[in-house]
Order: sequence, then C-alpha cells, then structure tokens
Amino acid sequence: MQLGRMNHVGVAVPDLDAAIAFYREVMGASDITEPFDLPEQGVRVCFVNTPDIADGPGTQVELLAPLSEASPVTNFLAKNPAGGQHHICFEVPDIEAARAEFEAMGKRILGPTRIGAHGTPIFFVHPKDMLGQLTEIMETPKEAH
Amino acid sequence: MQLGRMNHVGVAVPDLDAAIAFYREVMGASDITEPFDLPEQGVRVCFVNTPDIADGPGTQVELLAPLSEASPVTNFLAKNPAGGQHHICFEVPDIEAARAEFEAMGKRILGPTRIGAHGTPIFFVHPKDMLGQLTEIMETPKEAH
Repeated sequence: MQLGRMNHVGVAVPDLDAAIAFYREVMGASDITEPFDLPEQGVRVCFVNTPDIADGPGTQVELLAPLSEASPVTNFLAKNPAGGQHHICFEVPDIEAARAEFEAMGKRILGPTRIGAHGTPIFFVHPKDMLGQLTEIMETPKEAH
Repeated sequence: MQLGRMNHVGVAVPDLDAAIAFYREVMGASDITEPFDLPEQGVRVCFVNTPDIADGPGTQVELLAPLSEASPVTNFLAKNPAGGQHHICFEVPDIEAARAEFEAMGKRILGPTRIGAHGTPIFFVHPKDMLGQLTEIMETPKEAH
C-alpha cells in the first residue's frame, strides 16, 4: 500500500462533553462536530477539526467515549482513567485492496470491514502487529476531497 | 490560545531502524527523514511525512527511540514494549504567549521551553492536565510554511 493522509487521531475520553469543553477552552478549538453514536463500535464520537497549512482540512482529533460497559473503549479507560491516545487512522483509496494487502502480510485485522464515523468503509489492525499502535485504515471519502 | 495545526503524532519505538522499515514496507511510506539525535530530549528521532489533501505537508509521524536508559521514553517503552502513541503536537504562532496562557490556566508544563526537532521552540504539558495526552506545543517554523 501507499501511505495515505492521516485522517485522524482517536483519543478515548471518559466524558465526551467535558472533552469538548477542554478542546474549546484549553486548546482553543473553534470547529468541533456534533457528537453522534456509533453503536457498531460501541462509542459516541465527535471530531475536532484542526487547521491545515493550505485551505484543506487538517488531521482531526476524534474524541471517543464508551456507549456502554461492553464498549471496546471501556478497557482502555480502565487502564487510562484520564483518557489518552487510542488509535491512529490513515486513508486509502480502496479499502478492499488495502485489506487484502494487510491480510497477505499476516497482520491481524480486528473484525469485518464496516462503515466508520465518516461514512466510508474502515477496518482496524491489531496494535501488536503495528508497532503498538491500534491502526484504523479508512477509505477516503469521495465527496469530501 | 487558538488551536493550531497538528504538526505531528509522536510514536515511541524500541528500535528506530525497525520502525523505519515498518513504515516503508507495511505502511508504504516513501518520505521519511534521516534520523538524528536530540540529546536534550534523550531521544533519536525521524519523521514520516504523510500526504496532505492540498500540496502542503500532512501531519507527520515522529518516531522516537531512547538514546539511553535515562531517556524519558525508556519508562514508556517499559510499559509498552512494542511501542505506542507517546504524544501529540500542535503548532502555535508564538511559543511564549502560549506558555503564558497554559501557565495562567494552571497547567503543569514539563521543564523549560527548548528547541525541538523542527528547530523551533517547544514545551510539553503534563498528560494529567491534558485529557491523558502528553501534549507538545511547538512554534510554527517560519521558513517551512
């Protein structure tokens, strides 16, 4: 594969409203999307938009809070109660081609390809196969770029 | 302050050469800077350049390996032997103004303002005051943008 754009960095937080307030008040973010539930992933999310050098969008911060005790983020927050960097997401032009390449390399893919927070297909690769980083691979949104 | 560009995500790795090979071979990165030592920070680093939507540079991945047992990254790697996301770095136009703002908010700044890997002044803010994320604040390189 060819390394694509860093779409976002996922940050797990115990309280989404408090995290939004933090990004507004401490970090001076002025553009934060409305939160919404992603029940398939067990999380409630929103995105902090950051400025780019050019006029395009910068890499986002995805704030993730667990929807329930069964959320995959619950364990992470048990170990990191204040929150913390949870995953990193890179774009690819073709999700099925990327999945086939990761499979051919013997990387452990976590579950099926599914629709992610940006409405395009995504999958996650196990941190133990990815320099310790939980890595999301996401198909580039066609309308956005 | 006003949220600036996400300059880079810092990823601690146990072996810098192996991490560079990983980004080339697994992630398909074609643009990785030469590694260099940052003795003041106790690390050897290089940057993986990622593509941007526009022609500008995308958010980088900074690969950090410890220079010695005394490196601040050594403890992180003891807890995360495979490596992992270590910090996140946002740009500001004026480092002294940003430092004064963080101090006024009562955020714990880790050490003096110093010259970072991009040759501009930086400081780090304690993860316990920053939603669990070790946060680097970096003055925007004037020549680069």
